[in-house]
Amino acid sequence: MRSDGQYCGVAKALDVVGDRWSLLIVRELLLRDACRYTDLRDGLPGIATNLLAERLRGLEAAGVIQREAAPPPVATTLFRLTDRGQELRDAIHALGRWGSPLLADSAGEEAIQGH
Amino acid sequence: MRSDGQYCGVAKALDVVGDRWSLLIVRELLLRDACRYTDLRDGLPGIATNLLAERLRGLEAAGVIQREAAPPPVATTLFRLTDRGQELRDAIHALGRWGSPLLADSAGEEAIQGH
Repeated sequence: MRSDGQYCGVAKALDVVGDRWSLLIVRELLLRDACRYTDLRDGLPGIATNLLAERLRGLEAAGVIQREAAPPPVATTLFRLTDRGQELRDAIHALGRWGSPLLADSAGEEAIQGH
Repeated sequence: MRSDGQYCGVAKALDVVGDRWSLLIVRELLLRDACRYTDLRDGLPGIATNLLAERLRGLEAAGVIQREAAPPPVATTLFRLTDRGQELRDAIHALGRWGSPLLADSAGEEAIQGH
């Protein structure tokens, strides 16, 4: 969690969520609201279990997410964004808009490869 | 450059710029317009020279930045954002806004430590 002496808001934000998985965890929680650990793992194929646990701890320590004990019959830990975490919505949406043309590119490539 | 089967715009964007340094390079180029390699290196304290060169190649391959040969007396390579790279402005600004309260926190801590 270093800022390399650059006291800029972007660098500071990236200190907290400048990891691919952290931003994808936030995206999952924006989409799904409260999530169980297994929901997050299923929504993030390819993430190592220990890495998911580590990123969740980091995001909790940074005040981006919170965990709560759901009562029976759910009886499990649920993760959700804090108000501060919700404020990442604009950044996530802007990244999503920027990335969406790449989505179309991949679909095109797959269609071509399928023929 | 994997998307782990998640065909979502956010994941796709992070395939391209989901690295701390890549987003900070884009931020530098948004602030400074055309930049020499040494300007970028100076603006990103802590980046290893080979990492900067590698990220620049990746961003160029992804169509985010372009390089051009400046005529004498500059006579050096300049890097600048492409139109596609400029479109990251919203995402960078949103991250900067999200990070700016953290900036104030650090200043506060430093003020306290100074007394």
